[in-house]
Amino acid sequence: MRIGVLTGGGDCPGLNAVIRAVVRKGVAEYGHEFIGFRDGWRGPLEGKTMPLGIPEVRGILPRGGTILRSSRTNPFKVDGGVEKVKANLADLGVDALVAIGGEDTLGVAKKLTDLDVPVVGVPKTIDNDLGATDYTFGFDTAVNIATEAIDRLHTTAESHHRCVVVEVMGRHAGWIALHSGLAGGANVILVPERRFSVSEVVGWVESRFRTDYSPIVVVAEGAQPAEGEMVTQNAELDAFGHVRLGGIGQWLSDQIEKATGKESRAVVLGHVQRGGTPTAFDRVLATRFGLHAIDAVHEGDYGKMVALRGTDIVRVPLAEATAELKTVPDHRLDEASVFFG
Amino acid sequence: MRIGVLTGGGDCPGLNAVIRAVVRKGVAEYGHEFIGFRDGWRGPLEGKTMPLGIPEVRGILPRGGTILRSSRTNPFKVDGGVEKVKANLADLGVDALVAIGGEDTLGVAKKLTDLDVPVVGVPKTIDNDLGATDYTFGFDTAVNIATEAIDRLHTTAESHHRCVVVEVMGRHAGWIALHSGLAGGANVILVPERRFSVSEVVGWVESRFRTDYSPIVVVAEGAQPAEGEMVTQNAELDAFGHVRLGGIGQWLSDQIEKATGKESRAVVLGHVQRGGTPTAFDRVLATRFGLHAIDAVHEGDYGKMVALRGTDIVRVPLAEATAELKTVPDHRLDEASVFFG
Amino acid sequence: MRIGVLTGGGDCPGLNAVIRAVVRKGVAEYGHEFIGFRDGWRGPLEGKTMPLGIPEVRGILPRGGTILRSSRTNPFKVDGGVEKVKANLADLGVDALVAIGGEDTLGVAKKLTDLDVPVVGVPKTIDNDLGATDYTFGFDTAVNIATEAIDRLHTTAESHHRCVVVEVMGRHAGWIALHSGLAGGANVILVPERRFSVSEVVGWVESRFRTDYSPIVVVAEGAQPAEGEMVTQNAELDAFGHVRLGGIGQWLSDQIEKATGKESRAVVLGHVQRGGTPTAFDRVLATRFGLHAIDAVHEGDYGKMVALRGTDIVRVPLAEATAELKTVPDHRLDEASVFFG
Amino acid sequence: MRIGVLTGGGDCPGLNAVIRAVVRKGVAEYGHEFIGFRDGWRGPLEGKTMPLGIPEVRGILPRGGTILRSSRTNPFKVDGGVEKVKANLADLGVDALVAIGGEDTLGVAKKLTDLDVPVVGVPKTIDNDLGATDYTFGFDTAVNIATEAIDRLHTTAESHHRCVVVEVMGRHAGWIALHSGLAGGANVILVPERRFSVSEVVGWVESRFRTDYSPIVVVAEGAQPAEGEMVTQNAELDAFGHVRLGGIGQWLSDQIEKATGKESRAVVLGHVQRGGTPTAFDRVLATRFGLHAIDAVHEGDYGKMVALRGTDIVRVPLAEATAELKTVPDHRLDEASVFFG
Repeated sequence: MRIGVLTGGGDCPGLNAVIRAVVRKGVAEYGHEFIGFRDGWRGPLEGKTMPLGIPEVRGILPRGGTILRSSRTNPFKVDGGVEKVKANLADLGVDALVAIGGEDTLGVAKKLTDLDVPVVGVPKTIDNDLGATDYTFGFDTAVNIATEAIDRLHTTAESHHRCVVVEVMGRHAGWIALHSGLAGGANVILVPERRFSVSEVVGWVESRFRTDYSPIVVVAEGAQPAEGEMVTQNAELDAFGHVRLGGIGQWLSDQIEKATGKESRAVVLGHVQRGGTPTAFDRVLATRFGLHAIDAVHEGDYGKMVALRGTDIVRVPLAEATAELKTVPDHRLDEASVFFG
Repeated sequence: MRIGVLTGGGDCPGLNAVIRAVVRKGVAEYGHEFIGFRDGWRGPLEGKTMPLGIPEVRGILPRGGTILRSSRTNPFKVDGGVEKVKANLADLGVDALVAIGGEDTLGVAKKLTDLDVPVVGVPKTIDNDLGATDYTFGFDTAVNIATEAIDRLHTTAESHHRCVVVEVMGRHAGWIALHSGLAGGANVILVPERRFSVSEVVGWVESRFRTDYSPIVVVAEGAQPAEGEMVTQNAELDAFGHVRLGGIGQWLSDQIEKATGKESRAVVLGHVQRGGTPTAFDRVLATRFGLHAIDAVHEGDYGKMVALRGTDIVRVPLAEATAELKTVPDHRLDEASVFFG
Repeated sequence: MRIGVLTGGGDCPGLNAVIRAVVRKGVAEYGHEFIGFRDGWRGPLEGKTMPLGIPEVRGILPRGGTILRSSRTNPFKVDGGVEKVKANLADLGVDALVAIGGEDTLGVAKKLTDLDVPVVGVPKTIDNDLGATDYTFGFDTAVNIATEAIDRLHTTAESHHRCVVVEVMGRHAGWIALHSGLAGGANVILVPERRFSVSEVVGWVESRFRTDYSPIVVVAEGAQPAEGEMVTQNAELDAFGHVRLGGIGQWLSDQIEKATGKESRAVVLGHVQRGGTPTAFDRVLATRFGLHAIDAVHEGDYGKMVALRGTDIVRVPLAEATAELKTVPDHRLDEASVFFG
Repeated sequence: MRIGVLTGGGDCPGLNAVIRAVVRKGVAEYGHEFIGFRDGWRGPLEGKTMPLGIPEVRGILPRGGTILRSSRTNPFKVDGGVEKVKANLADLGVDALVAIGGEDTLGVAKKLTDLDVPVVGVPKTIDNDLGATDYTFGFDTAVNIATEAIDRLHTTAESHHRCVVVEVMGRHAGWIALHSGLAGGANVILVPERRFSVSEVVGWVESRFRTDYSPIVVVAEGAQPAEGEMVTQNAELDAFGHVRLGGIGQWLSDQIEKATGKESRAVVLGHVQRGGTPTAFDRVLATRFGLHAIDAVHEGDYGKMVALRGTDIVRVPLAEATAELKTVPDHRLDEASVFFG
């Protein structure tokens, strides 16, 4: 078989580990050959390819990002896009695709499968918000990077009797905030799933200031206050629709400074969270996803996505993958709230 | 209530996170008070205690080791030991115990519960070999440390056209070797669960040497060759029954050097793997274990151990915890073997 | 002797290492005793003290921040401040002071020495901009943190064909930008010492985009464009006079996006750079500074500051320490410019 | 010009940074072209070459090891070796060489220069024992790796009331032991420069055990006891003349266990210290060495080596480089000894 591989959407530590595992097992165990499509779905759409064999995947396991590059191109939003994809796959003699991506990328994969394009999906979201799998790779790396930053911020906050507000990724789901907040010993954790009361946050911050220690507030970029404050006024969107620096973290830090009369600093971790070498957990998960994805292709089990359940890798229909956003449930927030204040 | 806490057996990154979570929630949510028993079961046996309140657990979340210290003392192996434990608990007014430890520590907990001492267990094994839980804390940290070491060894191996044999922890179960070997891109992974053929290993090593890259062999300290070689002759045991440096890693490296005529070096990671700050994964897991353990105590649900199943914390009978060693199953080894050679 | 110790100004990884070395050597070798002044010069001014002996300095070597806390209080700017300091020192029986801080803290130390208060100084600035010493501790840690962030950003930038602008500390001197830019393989390094041309930066960025790799621009927070652009309009100052998020990094990223038509992202590392455990270099330097500072006190050699020259610790007059800002010289910038574009 | 580059001797983090800087500046600023010689002096001896241009050096800055590989081949120890080197250089049209290496490699460079082969040297020794330069790259990385290991070992040692003996690199000079011991808060630091008394070490260890903390002993692999104990009996040499695991660290740990009756564990860090990504300090130093080395070649200033003096890169005669081993001076050991015990 001749199999195409592509990576779509935001990059995640572990993408290269998936690619490597797919190719290593596909070549060594099944004798398949591979072609790399560049820039997500733009690759099949525009016929942008690169060689993808054993030499290309050598040494990429510990490297962040994706050697195939990525984009947010959606062939269903391009005139005649799907036909072009099919024609390019036919011209290139591609028998099946492995599509590695998040909700959008796998949504395209789902629709293409319905149109008889043979695709197997590998889930990827740094936010860990895909319902069909216990964890996605990249999440553990992001949480570790955020935790290490929080560790560092404790000492500088305490030395200056300051509050520090750390804004982490998570526009719709607060998993990174929850896990890095727990791991970093934050005094307050704010997530998009539950609107927060500024005055309650200020109360927790003040209670912490009464000790010799300093408050650390971890806030997901998508968290919102409950009290009708116009946070959006200083959270401008850039040309690409992303929240600018000067978002919720800075805004909340300002509110804390005003309400408490003590210094507060905002730190926005930003893209640092998604780059660089994956943790061991993410390398193992991504590698296992890749090994199982190529098995699915080899068996002709298309329209499926690999997923983690407990310690097992299973296959689920692509439709499931994109059915529902996995947000932080109430019981996990309540569990964490014992550390607030 | 007045609750005693102890940590037994080998130390693990995450022990302090458990202690902190137990105390923080016990004090803040339930109004309990705590007493620390030092040195594992020696604490209740000899009445060795330390204060354990909010001040004592402050700042310990990111710290490795255990502020309560540890030991391998077993009151059932001491004359009148159990009676002394009971008497000390009564004298100190202790209503219940949280025992954090591995097979041995939890085995004592089980037997004490049968004798009406109220205990809740928290599982701990850096080797990840307890059957009743998907993962134990400390394991993820050990795997990351080993993986980072393997990352470093790749470049020095290649610069000198050498083989490097990395000996990691795992006397009876090969989980650390399997995960760090996968994450580190090892060419050979050897575990206690499957005896290895030296000539097969040499074959894999030689096949790797034919590229411009160098072989990295990851071997669990408990792995054994199949061919009747006398590995024990240079793996002396020390006064405390532990395998000395100069164990399987060095022995295998020697065999490789002899068989291939190329340089091979052994690196024994040793205690570095179990010390130091826990990863975010382990801090979150340990914290959640602690929060759920104090809930169990509060509810009087003794004779239980907390455990991870998927993403949930559940309770299982202590008896289950120690029933069976969780070794690496065949399908996980076979899955990994595509990278050998 | 009874010796007071204080830390003033912004915190730096390594402060605790200095404190520990001063106390360990002072107690063990000279039999002195110590008193900790809290919050920089506010300590002697207001008589805010804490015990400072062997138990207090145990375990603090690897910890960021300062156990003595800090402030920017200047007794010379407080009515009767100097008299209060002198009276408090007399009341507490303090024979000499070790003052650890930057330009401001050491400036106070200098003036107090002129008024017969016996002080020895230890230089501290994360920006490495004190002329009298080759390096200050904290700088190496900040550079390593920034470099690790840049390493991570390369892969995410490349995966998305984006430019990333990394804003690092350095309001008046570009040492952190220069060293982290060199170490991280940046394509552009911008420092306060040399105004930059936006169009030249855009040219370097575009030249990099023509390869398959992505531009990384490292900019010191104090760098300024040469072309009369009003960067100040979106770099608001907060109530404490610090540059807000939304400073030069975000501004430059916007210019690049407009000029190139390609995505650009800004990352502002902020306080993460100054927190957390010091590197080995900083621990050794800070420890040696502390050991030599207590020697100076013991010998009654007041009005001096310890400094690094090559591999030696020497003493220089406090006056020298604050005489001149050590900025990045032209030849160092020219040396680095071969990597631009 | 056509310039050859080679790396000889043991690998060091930073070698690739030197190679990259040499090539980047040589191509961009001077228009030279480059040829890579593989495996140290074996490259010119046997005509083993590889292409070395901008594409080959892309992305190698953060990578440990050397893309040119290395060896300990000495053309002066091969019959007709020097003539072969000269003939190969002539055949390949090589006008000059940049030789990156330690005492041996630079010794060959020196002798070749005397025979009219134009060579510029770049010093490399992970042990930091070259007299002509303040620091060599690789050393800072090794010290940081050892320090991080020591940080980790503190907590496990304390949890078990154990002593831990950490054996670090340094056969003839104790710089790594001194710096990592200081940075890691070791209680004992033993170096090759000063024979140690086992009973004195035991005294320090016992004094530490009387606190609630545990002793950490850092010992350079080349350190030796003073009392006539036969340490060599269990420090076998392997076929390549290197000390085996089971060297001084294990031996000393055994002595401590016997003398104190407390558990002691040895950890031998080994090759982990020399692999992997360089620290920022080493990347900057290595890059600056490379930039200055190509300047020297361009100016025809052969027979020289670049060196660090304070914060400046200077040139010194190759003869100086190999004149004397830079060992740890007495005053540096005495300075550190305040922390012993």
